[in-house]
Amino acid sequence: MSIEVVRLHPERSDLGYAFGGREPLLTVKPGTVVELTTEDCFGGAVRGVDDLPSRVCEFPYLNPVTGPIAVEGAEPGDTVAVHFVDIRPTRDWAVSTTFPHFGALTTTHTTAMLHDALPERVWVYDVDVDRGVCRFHARQGDFEVELPLDPMHGTVGVAPAAGEVIMSITPGAHGGNMDTPEMRAGTTAYFGVNVPGALISIGDGHCRQGEGEVCGTAVEAAMSTVIVVDLIKGASTAWPRLEDDEFLMSTGSARPLEDAFRISQHDLVGWTADLLGLDALDAYQLVSQAGLAPAGNVVDTNYTMLAKLPKAILSGAVVFDGVHSRLRAAGARYQSERG
Amino acid sequence: MSIEVVRLHPERSDLGYAFGGREPLLTVKPGTVVELTTEDCFGGAVRGVDDLPSRVCEFPYLNPVTGPIAVEGAEPGDTVAVHFVDIRPTRDWAVSTTFPHFGALTTTHTTAMLHDALPERVWVYDVDVDRGVCRFHARQGDFEVELPLDPMHGTVGVAPAAGEVIMSITPGAHGGNMDTPEMRAGTTAYFGVNVPGALISIGDGHCRQGEGEVCGTAVEAAMSTVIVVDLIKGASTAWPRLEDDEFLMSTGSARPLEDAFRISQHDLVGWTADLLGLDALDAYQLVSQAGLAPAGNVVDTNYTMLAKLPKAILSGAVVFDGVHSRLRAAGARYQSERG
Amino acid sequence: MSIEVVRLHPERSDLGYAFGGREPLLTVKPGTVVELTTEDCFGGAVRGVDDLPSRVCEFPYLNPVTGPIAVEGAEPGDTVAVHFVDIRPTRDWAVSTTFPHFGALTTTHTTAMLHDALPERVWVYDVDVDRGVCRFHARQGDFEVELPLDPMHGTVGVAPAAGEVIMSITPGAHGGNMDTPEMRAGTTAYFGVNVPGALISIGDGHCRQGEGEVCGTAVEAAMSTVIVVDLIKGASTAWPRLEDDEFLMSTGSARPLEDAFRISQHDLVGWTADLLGLDALDAYQLVSQAGLAPAGNVVDTNYTMLAKLPKAILSGAVVFDGVHSRLRAAGARYQSERG
Amino acid sequence: MSIEVVRLHPERSDLGYAFGGREPLLTVKPGTVVELTTEDCFGGAVRGVDDLPSRVCEFPYLNPVTGPIAVEGAEPGDTVAVHFVDIRPTRDWAVSTTFPHFGALTTTHTTAMLHDALPERVWVYDVDVDRGVCRFHARQGDFEVELPLDPMHGTVGVAPAAGEVIMSITPGAHGGNMDTPEMRAGTTAYFGVNVPGALISIGDGHCRQGEGEVCGTAVEAAMSTVIVVDLIKGASTAWPRLEDDEFLMSTGSARPLEDAFRISQHDLVGWTADLLGLDALDAYQLVSQAGLAPAGNVVDTNYTMLAKLPKAILSGAVVFDGVHSRLRAAGARYQSERG
Repeated sequence: MSIEVVRLHPERSDLGYAFGGREPLLTVKPGTVVELTTEDCFGGAVRGVDDLPSRVCEFPYLNPVTGPIAVEGAEPGDTVAVHFVDIRPTRDWAVSTTFPHFGALTTTHTTAMLHDALPERVWVYDVDVDRGVCRFHARQGDFEVELPLDPMHGTVGVAPAAGEVIMSITPGAHGGNMDTPEMRAGTTAYFGVNVPGALISIGDGHCRQGEGEVCGTAVEAAMSTVIVVDLIKGASTAWPRLEDDEFLMSTGSARPLEDAFRISQHDLVGWTADLLGLDALDAYQLVSQAGLAPAGNVVDTNYTMLAKLPKAILSGAVVFDGVHSRLRAAGARYQSERG
Repeated sequence: MSIEVVRLHPERSDLGYAFGGREPLLTVKPGTVVELTTEDCFGGAVRGVDDLPSRVCEFPYLNPVTGPIAVEGAEPGDTVAVHFVDIRPTRDWAVSTTFPHFGALTTTHTTAMLHDALPERVWVYDVDVDRGVCRFHARQGDFEVELPLDPMHGTVGVAPAAGEVIMSITPGAHGGNMDTPEMRAGTTAYFGVNVPGALISIGDGHCRQGEGEVCGTAVEAAMSTVIVVDLIKGASTAWPRLEDDEFLMSTGSARPLEDAFRISQHDLVGWTADLLGLDALDAYQLVSQAGLAPAGNVVDTNYTMLAKLPKAILSGAVVFDGVHSRLRAAGARYQSERG
Repeated sequence: MSIEVVRLHPERSDLGYAFGGREPLLTVKPGTVVELTTEDCFGGAVRGVDDLPSRVCEFPYLNPVTGPIAVEGAEPGDTVAVHFVDIRPTRDWAVSTTFPHFGALTTTHTTAMLHDALPERVWVYDVDVDRGVCRFHARQGDFEVELPLDPMHGTVGVAPAAGEVIMSITPGAHGGNMDTPEMRAGTTAYFGVNVPGALISIGDGHCRQGEGEVCGTAVEAAMSTVIVVDLIKGASTAWPRLEDDEFLMSTGSARPLEDAFRISQHDLVGWTADLLGLDALDAYQLVSQAGLAPAGNVVDTNYTMLAKLPKAILSGAVVFDGVHSRLRAAGARYQSERG
Repeated sequence: MSIEVVRLHPERSDLGYAFGGREPLLTVKPGTVVELTTEDCFGGAVRGVDDLPSRVCEFPYLNPVTGPIAVEGAEPGDTVAVHFVDIRPTRDWAVSTTFPHFGALTTTHTTAMLHDALPERVWVYDVDVDRGVCRFHARQGDFEVELPLDPMHGTVGVAPAAGEVIMSITPGAHGGNMDTPEMRAGTTAYFGVNVPGALISIGDGHCRQGEGEVCGTAVEAAMSTVIVVDLIKGASTAWPRLEDDEFLMSTGSARPLEDAFRISQHDLVGWTADLLGLDALDAYQLVSQAGLAPAGNVVDTNYTMLAKLPKAILSGAVVFDGVHSRLRAAGARYQSERG
């Protein structure tokens, strides 16, 4: 049986800037492969060091997302799975910037201080997909260095609960702008469904990012991305979960950062208890000794932490009947068919 | 030239419970190897599942440290380096526990709530140093799993500034109970000197711990540890820094967790700018794309975050004239001499 | 010239549960008096101690608001003023409750812990408008005490920026569920306009509340309320501001609570500098010595702090050309006309 | 029976800079009146607008305290009461300043950012004790305004538990630098005793301060202060509590600010339950509707929140057998005897 493949290449006028409040651009059956393209977080408007975002971008038309994609049969109380088969920068350059009142080491509108904003500055990276690197050029002096490409999407999620419409820059229980480097090819993301169709949107591709995304932006790039979408009926998922070949990952997005940490760890403890049939305190103990806890972002309107557990210690327990392996295999099949 | 080696095996009555306020147990020259032993964070009093810490331990006699060790010639404004050559559990068991009002997923005396405390529970791990594993046994049911040993010290630091005496459970600018798994053999830790002799103390050995140490304790063990101590004159270090063969690491210990993150990232940005001769914004950009940001602890009286940068991108720049490599070599020489 | 008076008594099916995303129920000219009614935060469903909210209410149909009310001529970049003339409980009882995972001294979905939820409990208060008191009855034992009525609205705001639709339980830059006792009769609230008409909604009447609203709910009551609405063209307002006869008040709603504090103080410093023609640091100094800083709520999805400055030190400077005094006078005229 | 009165006028060399780690300067019986003097937080070194604290003060010789005063018979597990009879500025001027990296609206060493420090600036106030006012002069322009005197002590506490020595700038469970305007004449402060004698120290007089002390310093003044000290045997007090004629007040000092709020509210709920014989949830409910929650400081190494309950609703219940009234009466007697 061949895999169904559909394409979603939105026009600029079709881009979204929020989760919720929008009709689907596309409806797909569970199991479908979607080839899609995304613009960068500046809508492609920052193309050189003189294109200051505060001048060339217009609030709130920032962080455009491609979607929503409706999944047939998805109802509140279900979970949708989004497996990333491929994420590939479409240009040979990418950009990063400081932006007034945005970032972890600057006064912001929330951490409000009497300082003037830090200077706004743009960095243009050379991107070489074949060699798998992007090149940083210092703006002062001539320091340069190549960094490995590790393409990912900062923004992936579904329509929120309670009819809310949430700017694409905000991460939360619906996913959104979690800005974690773990959202790379090979990862399956699980989201609880809040509205019929789930309404998945994806954007904010990064050639790579550090954990925490401390200056506020990553190596921002337009992407050509392939996903496989699936549906798990009757399984609710309170906060986005990720899975790759090595790790289970829970996310939490909140402020202060310790609450993001608490949400993610609480979720991972419950997940571990469920998978292994453990008492909550036993799972708490096991996660405490075996888990990892990297920052996603510490700059957005909510901060994101991840809680990771190596699958090696799960004694073979599998999530949702092995959906990650199945989607990974489907992705491989798609890739071998495309050549 | 042979390396000077000294031993420090404190009696129970010689253990300390704070940083500051104590005369040195030992004074060493820069470059000395110190073989020392540490008790576990319960002072060895928790030896079975019925030894509830709240019963067998007495506040404030928790988290004992070995030391202080004075470094000859160390003065305020200098930096001491502590390189970990070896950290080895001394018993074939280790323990972890929940403790009333301690941990990230429970009401505490600070995050004060109206809930009763979570149940207090002890887990005893089998430790097999030769095979490099410790074994977790669930308290409810019969789940068991082996976890890799990754021995480290939760608590390492120097006497604080301003004449303060700070409980050994608190991390801060003086180091202390940072509870990061990065404090393992092969790592060099740098601390700014606040008092003559610096007064290094070490304790809280862990067979391993997850990032965040979410339940409040790791796989706690008495350790036999070998360090090499060195002194960098005229170099101040505001917050503890770590270095291993692969990474530079800045630490921040504070509340809320985003302030721990900010301190660590701010320090790493400054460190990177200094090493590479970069403008602050260029360093901010580079760290944003290349850095890692794991949690240390999110349970102690201050929380700890790490900011890590791969040394591969430093174009050969070295810290303090290469002290890490020198101490690593000295450690290797010591080990080959000991057989 | 007589004052225009209109009424807004929405049917249950006309109640809103969010700011944004809704057509106006009513459009009024600046200067209009609006007589309106609001349901309590439980939609009137909690009427006795056995009506546990988790049973009789259905998420997300909580915290209903009356509105939106469009103001003719209001455009983004303007400010609307809402002056409270009268707020009067419509029943001789009111209720308060604990609610699972809601409140400052309990585990929540954000400050996620392993505790079971605190017990859910309902308190019914007797309300005596004529005597100006409400009576608390302990649920265990027979302690009773009368507390003064101090009627106010927890939830007042406008449609948010960027097309967002935000649950009525959340406070933010658009106002919303700030839950401050200062929103009482005699107060004028200023909101920046984000969409044509501003789209004011009001709900969540409280017979009284403590600062911080620590258990999560106040003495909740349906209200009969009279407001006067006005429009200040060309004046932007970043965060809601309040004014009464004695104080200027800035608000900040965010997490952690110190960011709510920072926003409110930063705003008050700027406001003071503008009104008195002071340098920012002089205004910072003056606010530091003369200001008050009470909590609004520390339980909602964002926390709210207020920054208050006594108008006595303003040397006669007035806000928006004296709009508060004008609206207060209009309210008095309305009241004398109604008898 | 006449009241015992003793004096404590420390030399500059006798001033302390920490809580803990020091022998008492004075030992008094319970019930003793102590007339004491305190220097301002700058040690009197800032006397004009050109005396920038970073130049004329030397870290850590900031925020000097007078004491410690030992109370005869005080043992761990007891509570000491400090009633303020009179607090009077000793000079006809006072000062306030910004200080680099200190304050709520600036980058600090903890909320670390890449901004340069805000400008350091000194304001000198005229103090007129007879008229009960201090006068603010803007540094830019000629704005001036009189503010009412409301003299208080920012720093009051006892030696901490666990042998810690804590800089006088830090508030905590031992009291210390809480910086609340409630610490004025007429208030009784209760502290749990951690070491024999309790070891009370007092400093940091303010002619007045705003809630939150947002710029980091108040209207700082040397004071002549009269206290009455008392001892309550066998009563422990976890966090400092205050009482005046109108209110019970619990304090919490921690970060983030919501934890300071939680501590103070948790303590007040427990206190209310104890005094009125209420179930914890009933007390939670009552405090939620009747309590006040002003900020103390949001600038020190820990932030301080207060939780206040009007004594009018206590149905006559009294604290510690009426010690506040007795000390107030003793103070009045002392004042009438002194004329």
